[in-house]
Amino acid sequence: MKVDGKHFRSIWLDQDGWSVGAIDQRKLPHELVVARLTTCDEAADAIRTMLVRGAPLIGATAAYGMALAMRDDRSETGIDRAYQTLIATRPTAINLKWALDEMRAALRRLPPSARLEAAYARADDIAEQDIAINQGIAGHGLPLIEAIAASKSGEAVNLLTHCNAGWLATVDWGTATAPIYLAHDRGIPVHVWVDETRPRNQGASLTAWELGHHGVPHTVIPDNTGGHLMQHGKVDLVIVGTDRVAANGDVCNKIGTYLKALAAHDNGVPFYVALPSPTIDFNIADGIGQIPIEQRGADEVTDMTGRTADGRIETVRIVPEGSPVANYAFDVTPARLVTGLLTERGVLSADRAALSAAFPERIAAAAE
Amino acid sequence: MKVDGKHFRSIWLDQDGWSVGAIDQRKLPHELVVARLTTCDEAADAIRTMLVRGAPLIGATAAYGMALAMRDDRSETGIDRAYQTLIATRPTAINLKWALDEMRAALRRLPPSARLEAAYARADDIAEQDIAINQGIAGHGLPLIEAIAASKSGEAVNLLTHCNAGWLATVDWGTATAPIYLAHDRGIPVHVWVDETRPRNQGASLTAWELGHHGVPHTVIPDNTGGHLMQHGKVDLVIVGTDRVAANGDVCNKIGTYLKALAAHDNGVPFYVALPSPTIDFNIADGIGQIPIEQRGADEVTDMTGRTADGRIETVRIVPEGSPVANYAFDVTPARLVTGLLTERGVLSADRAALSAAFPERIAAAAE
Repeated sequence: MKVDGKHFRSIWLDQDGWSVGAIDQRKLPHELVVARLTTCDEAADAIRTMLVRGAPLIGATAAYGMALAMRDDRSETGIDRAYQTLIATRPTAINLKWALDEMRAALRRLPPSARLEAAYARADDIAEQDIAINQGIAGHGLPLIEAIAASKSGEAVNLLTHCNAGWLATVDWGTATAPIYLAHDRGIPVHVWVDETRPRNQGASLTAWELGHHGVPHTVIPDNTGGHLMQHGKVDLVIVGTDRVAANGDVCNKIGTYLKALAAHDNGVPFYVALPSPTIDFNIADGIGQIPIEQRGADEVTDMTGRTADGRIETVRIVPEGSPVANYAFDVTPARLVTGLLTERGVLSADRAALSAAFPERIAAAAE
Repeated sequence: MKVDGKHFRSIWLDQDGWSVGAIDQRKLPHELVVARLTTCDEAADAIRTMLVRGAPLIGATAAYGMALAMRDDRSETGIDRAYQTLIATRPTAINLKWALDEMRAALRRLPPSARLEAAYARADDIAEQDIAINQGIAGHGLPLIEAIAASKSGEAVNLLTHCNAGWLATVDWGTATAPIYLAHDRGIPVHVWVDETRPRNQGASLTAWELGHHGVPHTVIPDNTGGHLMQHGKVDLVIVGTDRVAANGDVCNKIGTYLKALAAHDNGVPFYVALPSPTIDFNIADGIGQIPIEQRGADEVTDMTGRTADGRIETVRIVPEGSPVANYAFDVTPARLVTGLLTERGVLSADRAALSAAFPERIAAAAE
């Protein structure tokens, strides 16, 4: 989508034809810095340190990481070593494993001499496929927004989203934001309540930044606010992303999503999850019991980085010294609270039957 | 309670016998600064700027503000002017009105010559009464914690609280924290999950600070975390404070409380509200529809103040320039989600019948 009027993706193949460019998301919203990834280890570091983040973008970055690895070692050992390096970076988003499995399968069936070119081609495919999936989600989500707009006689449709499931979390368009961008581009008046999303503030830092640059009206709110807004009729529709959906429709997403789902349910507000199919994990029968929840460092909670009035970037500590901190990165929203799953193949109910019917090939892959 | 081993209150009459000392809570947890209030206007500013905050402490500060006003003007006009100055400071906490009504009634029935001394005496009473109420809450809340402790064979009882309903929000002991301090002082192992409480971070800045100084084990968590913890059996009991309870048992408290009440209800975790009787408003029949919700400045959301690694206090902006912000300070938890109201007269169910039976004199006052 657009930044200062110019079209950007979150990740791309450099003009040199082999290195990989990516927006360093740790610097946003204060600075737009582009990083250049030149080795598999650098790609792994980019995922681990959250230079890139967001389940679909993690998958695309891992795919390019495998391609970079092939420059050094095209053997079976090289494939396996790259796979292990990249899979160990983050535990929750299943797109990482999906992209690595796709890459490994494609490379193993070729002779070493053909692997480098094939790796770049398959990584490009994965990136393009992500965009196509998100455009599919946009198309299936648009009617939901249109239907609400039709009942509001010109007033903006109020959406609420949590964390960043925007174009920065994917290659382009985003998942939760895809229908929002499409509605906005078609002239439907929308307004987005953007959850700040502590502790890393991806809502305030990334979602507000990208919506602002694309011209979409929005308001940043503390994570505590959504329940009050829903009680008072100020939210028409919630759309969030996901890092992994279990076979039973349980949705793992950024910590705090579950609380918003509870509030939506309590107030009769529709709660949709934008779900690109690589995010489905048919190997997990029960999301709450089985999806591993990453715990991250205390400094993400205790420290906050921002810009001072005179323009310096500073990091300040906001929690008393000596107070312990816990930092669970994700939670799981039970399927019973999900109105529908917005996929590239249509809007599905959040249950095994609907997921299985829509994505039979993903069940087959899971069984392998 | 204790700070560096020394007993503190949040507000006190100075040794000079007329000025008022108070901890400047805007400086915590980084610095312990004591402010001296010498006029009614200074007391009003202290409330407005949140140098003091917390419903019971706002009431006590307003009472001392009326006493300071009597030093300048003991006429009816002087009483009314002080009342109007103080009532206009903040809209949500009903304790403010309660304390001012108490003071005005006490002063009006005396000749001007007797009003100065009487004002200080009544303000001291209100402060002492707050402490007695909180000790009452402690006594009635303790059995709840003891009962859970009895079932955990030595393991700590895990409590969760939101915002600061600690001794800093009152004159001493706190409301939500009163049973926790009492349990801890009696040797019952407790551990408190402390919600950070964006945007002003009263949990991380104040609750963690006071629990830490008193030696109570605790962990600071982002506001998004509580639902996940409850889903996984890591919370035994939620206790929060309140700024106003409606006649029907609806509970107004710091924004985000409602989301924790939903999560507690969804997971069968008991959700108690510590309620000193001056916080009941029998004039409000329906909390969600009628309690006024304060909206505060955007800078509380966009800016964050803390200490740099080399010890400087800095304020940094964390939201992109140009992104609008909303800052609702409170929300209302419907009575149906409240397990019980912890009052100085026992544990009540959250409904009109129980509140009326326990506090008939407050109904009479409301009818005046």
